[in-house]
Amino acid sequence: MSLFPQLAPGRELERGETLAPRFDASGLIAAVAVDADRDEVLMLAWMNAEALALTIETGQAHYYSRSRQALWKKGETSGQVQTVVELRVDCDQDAVLLKVRPQGDGGACHVGFRSCFYRVVEDGRLVERPLP
Amino acid sequence: MSLFPQLAPGRELERGETLAPRFDASGLIAAVAVDADRDEVLMLAWMNAEALALTIETGQAHYYSRSRQALWKKGETSGQVQTVVELRVDCDQDAVLLKVRPQGDGGACHVGFRSCFYRVVEDGRLVERPLP
Repeated sequence: MSLFPQLAPGRELERGETLAPRFDASGLIAAVAVDADRDEVLMLAWMNAEALALTIETGQAHYYSRSRQALWKKGETSGQVQTVVELRVDCDQDAVLLKVRPQGDGGACHVGFRSCFYRVVEDGRLVERPLP
Repeated sequence: MSLFPQLAPGRELERGETLAPRFDASGLIAAVAVDADRDEVLMLAWMNAEALALTIETGQAHYYSRSRQALWKKGETSGQVQTVVELRVDCDQDAVLLKVRPQGDGGACHVGFRSCFYRVVEDGRLVERPLP
């Protein structure tokens, strides 16, 4: 049984009211989490249908780990639970955008920075420059 | 010949200076484009190694269209060229974040909104609410 309806490409998919996320061949959709209060991109992760449904139902971000091949409630071990303030989909419904309030230490990245995107590409090299 | 070096998971991948993007089994990496002046998430798209190399080389965003299976310079037909102000990678280098200045009409979405994420999920339905 499918958790979400399916829509073919077209006007209903792009302008309609029906949430019909388009999961890829692996059953996943890309999810971008942004800090609701700072408008900073925190992380990019993946959701399967169950993770997306749980995120909507509980108001806390759930993802799917491609490496561990398992559903994953963000913060379950780290305490960096993400309270979802707003959930958006893009035009062709193959990506979701979450505005979240990170709990715990306020971070989202296992390395210790608030955002996973703490490195800038400069002259072909990576430079650590976390946002202030 | 590979355009980028490869690194195994570990400290060098997460904290080192080497740009070693980890493309998935299809040879793609997720790319999030944010408006450099508004901190608004504009779109999520895909890059193959060539698209990423061209983006770095030219300073203009190139993507890979999964549906058309072709390299794609953003704005080539729409005029919505994206000048890249900053390029970041995430902790495990399987996602990139671009801060861009959209040219042309200033938008990024083919539907006509500035951002592709113009719909919010509310009570299980989609509501169009583009950012002001």
